[in-house]
Amino acid sequence: KMANPAKLMDNEVLMAFASYATIILSKMMFMSIATAFFRVTKKVFANPEDCESFGKGENVKKFLRTDESVERVRRAHLNDLENIVPFLGIGLLYSLSGPDLSTALLHFRIFVGSRFYHTMAYLLPLPQPNRGLAFFVGYGVTLSMAYSLLRNRFYL
Amino acid sequence: KMANPAKLMDNEVLMAFASYATIILSKMMFMSIATAFFRVTKKVFANPEDCESFGKGENVKKFLRTDESVERVRRAHLNDLENIVPFLGIGLLYSLSGPDLSTALLHFRIFVGSRFYHTMAYLLPLPQPNRGLAFFVGYGVTLSMAYSLLRNRFYL
Amino acid sequence: KMANPAKLMDNEVLMAFASYATIILSKMMFMSIATAFFRVTKKVFANPEDCESFGKGENVKKFLRTDESVERVRRAHLNDLENIVPFLGIGLLYSLSGPDLSTALLHFRIFVGSRFYHTMAYLLPLPQPNRGLAFFVGYGVTLSMAYSLLRNRFYL
Repeated sequence: KMANPAKLMDNEVLMAFASYATIILSKMMFMSIATAFFRVTKKVFANPEDCESFGKGENVKKFLRTDESVERVRRAHLNDLENIVPFLGIGLLYSLSGPDLSTALLHFRIFVGSRFYHTMAYLLPLPQPNRGLAFFVGYGVTLSMAYSLLRNRFYL
Repeated sequence: KMANPAKLMDNEVLMAFASYATIILSKMMFMSIATAFFRVTKKVFANPEDCESFGKGENVKKFLRTDESVERVRRAHLNDLENIVPFLGIGLLYSLSGPDLSTALLHFRIFVGSRFYHTMAYLLPLPQPNRGLAFFVGYGVTLSMAYSLLRNRFYL
Repeated sequence: KMANPAKLMDNEVLMAFASYATIILSKMMFMSIATAFFRVTKKVFANPEDCESFGKGENVKKFLRTDESVERVRRAHLNDLENIVPFLGIGLLYSLSGPDLSTALLHFRIFVGSRFYHTMAYLLPLPQPNRGLAFFVGYGVTLSMAYSLLRNRFYL
């Protein structure tokens, strides 16, 4: 009898994880578009081949520079990557470990909300400690799932 | 009765996802080797301890610099990371959501092909819009899986 | 009959993977704290809003700089990300492919050990080839799981 992984998705916790993970990954992907938008509007590029339409030869070099708005989006993107990767790994394994649905939803919702707020605080920017708090809330959610996972299912 | 996760892998979509994910992650890992290769052949290092065999004291400092070929590989590597992480997260959950095999294969194949082409376009480099198109094709594949996942299995 | 993903976690290989993945992701998350610690103690910031408590206007600019200890932690963090992402993706799929428990444990333990050693070698720092060896050991473990996965379950 063939296993049916679609059955896995009948589980509400895993289905909720899939929804929140997809949303936050799509948000992260949007950071690439934001970077490209600032690069083009500010004419700030990292590769000579990217600004060839603006000029040739020596003329190209003036577009190969860094700009604070581009670097800011790139830092926000890298911070997403550094925090969403642990959420994905720990969150998936946590979801498979059979947690209570309402507890799991609380974790997923707070994490996703905190990362949206983090990006907003980074890009506007909002004064500190807005961004710092957003970071630590998401961080705490992931550690809480890690703790719950290791407490119930520790196997080394 | 103990659950047998190997049964999960009898599912063709998940097996295909495992193959494509493994291939594209192995390709991404290769970027580390490419960086190390350029660092050693061009004698361009980020850490004093990495170039101690080339000289001591003041002599070491001249190897602590940046070089355009090294930075290019590093940008290609980071772009991989930014795009392969969403593919892994969304692709796994999409595979578990019971999609049609041929549709799933189409997504995996186009994504993996577009990332190989992206790396080639970045490293040679090819003139734009080669790299830009490769990026957007992979981006579109991931968004298409995200859309399919959220449409069928939305749970917030 | 509803699928019970908690049953998946009765599988010892997946439970072991969950434990080791959680440990190494928690270690990676610690790198953010290490970066923040060096930024605050060395007064080295990337964003004007982060150092407003130290001064206003022109006075702020002197804190917007780079520092070798901060950059070192950031490079160690990025190297973690570049290597732990393939471990997570390939390791999860490998765990689902029904490997021998003792072989799987050997892979997980060596990988996690090598990454802890890598961070220690990067931050102290230890002379090369300590960090290089730690990198290649972890790299080899991931490639070994990728090979095992593709040999048994190749589907393109």
